[in-house]
Amino acid sequence: MHALSLPEDVRQSLSRHFGPRFSRGDSIRLQHGRDESIHEPAPPDAVVMAESTEEVALVVALCARHGVPVIPYGVGSSVEGHVLAPAGGVSLDLSGMNRIVAIHAEDGDAVVEAGVTRKQLNDALKGTGLFFPIDPGADATLGGMAATRASGTNAVRYGTMKDNVLATTTVLADGRVMETGGRARKSSAGYDLTRLLVGSEGTLGIMTELTVKLYPIPEAISAAVCTFPDIDSAVRTVIQTIQLGVPVARIELLDALSLQAINRFSKTALAEAPTLFFEFHGSPTAVAEQAETVQAIASGLDGAGFAWATRPEDRNRLWQARHDAYFACLQLKPGCRCFPTDVCVPISRLAECIAKTQADIAQVRIPIALFGHVGDGNFHLVVLVDRDNPRDMEEAAWISERVVERAIAMEGTCTGEHGIGLGKRKYLVPEHGAVAVDAMRALKTALDPHNVLNPGKVLPER
Amino acid sequence: MHALSLPEDVRQSLSRHFGPRFSRGDSIRLQHGRDESIHEPAPPDAVVMAESTEEVALVVALCARHGVPVIPYGVGSSVEGHVLAPAGGVSLDLSGMNRIVAIHAEDGDAVVEAGVTRKQLNDALKGTGLFFPIDPGADATLGGMAATRASGTNAVRYGTMKDNVLATTTVLADGRVMETGGRARKSSAGYDLTRLLVGSEGTLGIMTELTVKLYPIPEAISAAVCTFPDIDSAVRTVIQTIQLGVPVARIELLDALSLQAINRFSKTALAEAPTLFFEFHGSPTAVAEQAETVQAIASGLDGAGFAWATRPEDRNRLWQARHDAYFACLQLKPGCRCFPTDVCVPISRLAECIAKTQADIAQVRIPIALFGHVGDGNFHLVVLVDRDNPRDMEEAAWISERVVERAIAMEGTCTGEHGIGLGKRKYLVPEHGAVAVDAMRALKTALDPHNVLNPGKVLPER
Repeated sequence: MHALSLPEDVRQSLSRHFGPRFSRGDSIRLQHGRDESIHEPAPPDAVVMAESTEEVALVVALCARHGVPVIPYGVGSSVEGHVLAPAGGVSLDLSGMNRIVAIHAEDGDAVVEAGVTRKQLNDALKGTGLFFPIDPGADATLGGMAATRASGTNAVRYGTMKDNVLATTTVLADGRVMETGGRARKSSAGYDLTRLLVGSEGTLGIMTELTVKLYPIPEAISAAVCTFPDIDSAVRTVIQTIQLGVPVARIELLDALSLQAINRFSKTALAEAPTLFFEFHGSPTAVAEQAETVQAIASGLDGAGFAWATRPEDRNRLWQARHDAYFACLQLKPGCRCFPTDVCVPISRLAECIAKTQADIAQVRIPIALFGHVGDGNFHLVVLVDRDNPRDMEEAAWISERVVERAIAMEGTCTGEHGIGLGKRKYLVPEHGAVAVDAMRALKTALDPHNVLNPGKVLPER
Repeated sequence: MHALSLPEDVRQSLSRHFGPRFSRGDSIRLQHGRDESIHEPAPPDAVVMAESTEEVALVVALCARHGVPVIPYGVGSSVEGHVLAPAGGVSLDLSGMNRIVAIHAEDGDAVVEAGVTRKQLNDALKGTGLFFPIDPGADATLGGMAATRASGTNAVRYGTMKDNVLATTTVLADGRVMETGGRARKSSAGYDLTRLLVGSEGTLGIMTELTVKLYPIPEAISAAVCTFPDIDSAVRTVIQTIQLGVPVARIELLDALSLQAINRFSKTALAEAPTLFFEFHGSPTAVAEQAETVQAIASGLDGAGFAWATRPEDRNRLWQARHDAYFACLQLKPGCRCFPTDVCVPISRLAECIAKTQADIAQVRIPIALFGHVGDGNFHLVVLVDRDNPRDMEEAAWISERVVERAIAMEGTCTGEHGIGLGKRKYLVPEHGAVAVDAMRALKTALDPHNVLNPGKVLPER
């Protein structure tokens, strides 16, 4: 750990204001200086547990005056080094800001503090007939999900965080508090600050409150599993489904290795073959129609027929298994870490992109599982490495680079949902071009001239 | 008209490069210095008809060096003074940039130049099975629609331009060209420049090319008309429909005066009573289900039963009549102009908002029609005034102010789809607060430090 370098003034002020909610202990600093991925931990100098927008504003204003970095922190489930503190500073933990401020069932929206998690929100919605669909797997905070423009399994039907955050309360880099957006379903009033903040990874402002869209719980929900002789047939099923405009709620691909890992970790007995998990939402007849259409497509591509999970507990078990795929894969190689990839390409290129990626996988020694939200053209590799083994790291870097370059060449993106953080900064110019990245830099300088907010993230070094 | 003030260098360069596509004639200047609304014309010093991104970049770079304003122009169908040139400068007419660059049917997107209109795009899509749904009524250019964050009748199902622009080519204020976004369906790679540009009204950059989302033409489409004894019953039908989550494609309210105007203008024989126009999209069974649900709601609120328009020509006639409502209303008072309003509120407040607005209408002498995209909580008043009659103007200003203030107090917006332009600048701080508007100013300064791009629009004077 680097030396503690918090200016004495800052230390004293924070200690006075926050008492035991201000901490410089090694274990809490370490906990706040690492994430779920391969990045070397980089602990902050101190951690503050904030409980209100006013407290966030106070910390930011104080740190800004002293040039101390502020890194917002939710539950630490991100995977691109977003919460690390490579330049030190204060990790501002918002997990205590977990009040549900208002549920407007009649308008289909909820106002929540940034530390509310998606499961907590859905629990609070019980009895309203509404739900919040965005589901990245981890029980992330909504603030963190907004900051990384998260999406996950339901995005193919319900969109990503960019489509589902209506408004924010945000602390600017000078400590002032602004409101962005509003509860009207649309507006043409001025620049879209809300969508500029969504995906900005805490570098342009710290979102402390969000208004998010809710949806009526579908009258009927059905989930199904279908295995295929090879990945290509599964991917072609996905492409035809999307091109036909079938409004599937979820359509997830998992390769044979992912299913081995899941069976071992979740004690399931799924066939260890390339597999699609589906979910259909709608009226009973709409769900039946959708399922019929997709079954016909799948059977034309040698899909093995649908195994249905209709009871809620069976559906939940299935999706829990899907969500645990990341951790299940980590268990394949004890003590390993994951080098995550997250490309997303136009759907017409998905089959080719995955086929070429499989050829890459065949060339390396390290275990690599493939799964993803293929309805959006988004898939992940879980590249398992021993961080201390240079050959593992070399192979992982090689395949990650290949996959990202291929996706960008196919008019895709280096990250469909994880974000740039530290890990994908070098791909920002290849993907968007130098002029666009210059424009991003100009926006960062405009809103955070002293580079106080999560410095070193998103934008590549010059 | 104000005196021609184009610097000689600029005049000569533009004349040399553009020949007859550079013009300083009075009639073309006047045509480019007015819009479809109440704003006093303010002609530019010259008009340039651009035909490529490179030409736009050339004009912007040249004008930037000389501090000459550049005002992008499509077809001039906006209504908040967006295209006026209150500080003079060059109107950059993009209507000649009307190439459809690519249609990617297999990915459901199209790349178009900014001057392509929505009808032109839909004509080009014939035979693909796809359509572009966003429909503000006027056959606006897609560049103009993106710039104002337009929406219209289909937005309740398909979203607004913010949801349907995937990528842009944009000329920055210094003449550099940047690419934003991409063709992948989602991305977490960096700041969302695309959505910052959408709705920025030509003040942050000039979009010259857009990638827009396309949708499969629904298997079944049905339209219906239903009249009600009063507006309140119609509005309550809308609210219940939306709260139930029925995925209506269009749900439009028109008051009795709008229908009088439509019958006269479009030679229709619709009942001159508060009316809802509906459209349902989906599979035949889904459309039947939706229609049944909405009919049950309407009949519970004294709706007169659905009159169906099932043949495409009948549907087209119905929606053409709806789209002509604005011009039909203008004919109610020959020689008049329209003072447009465009508020949007959370759906739960819509009935109260409209009822109070009707009480306001009863207090003035000038004719006022009310219609709108009520599924989103958005409605317009067409306030008809003689621009030379101070009492008309006073009444119009009074009612516009009342309606906007009420919408903002109800957590709504001063503009659901028209934009801020010149006409709604004074409401930006009341709606978003001073800190958010300061942040918008900082973004404008970052991207256009010399205030060359459409100066005087969106941001209020300090």
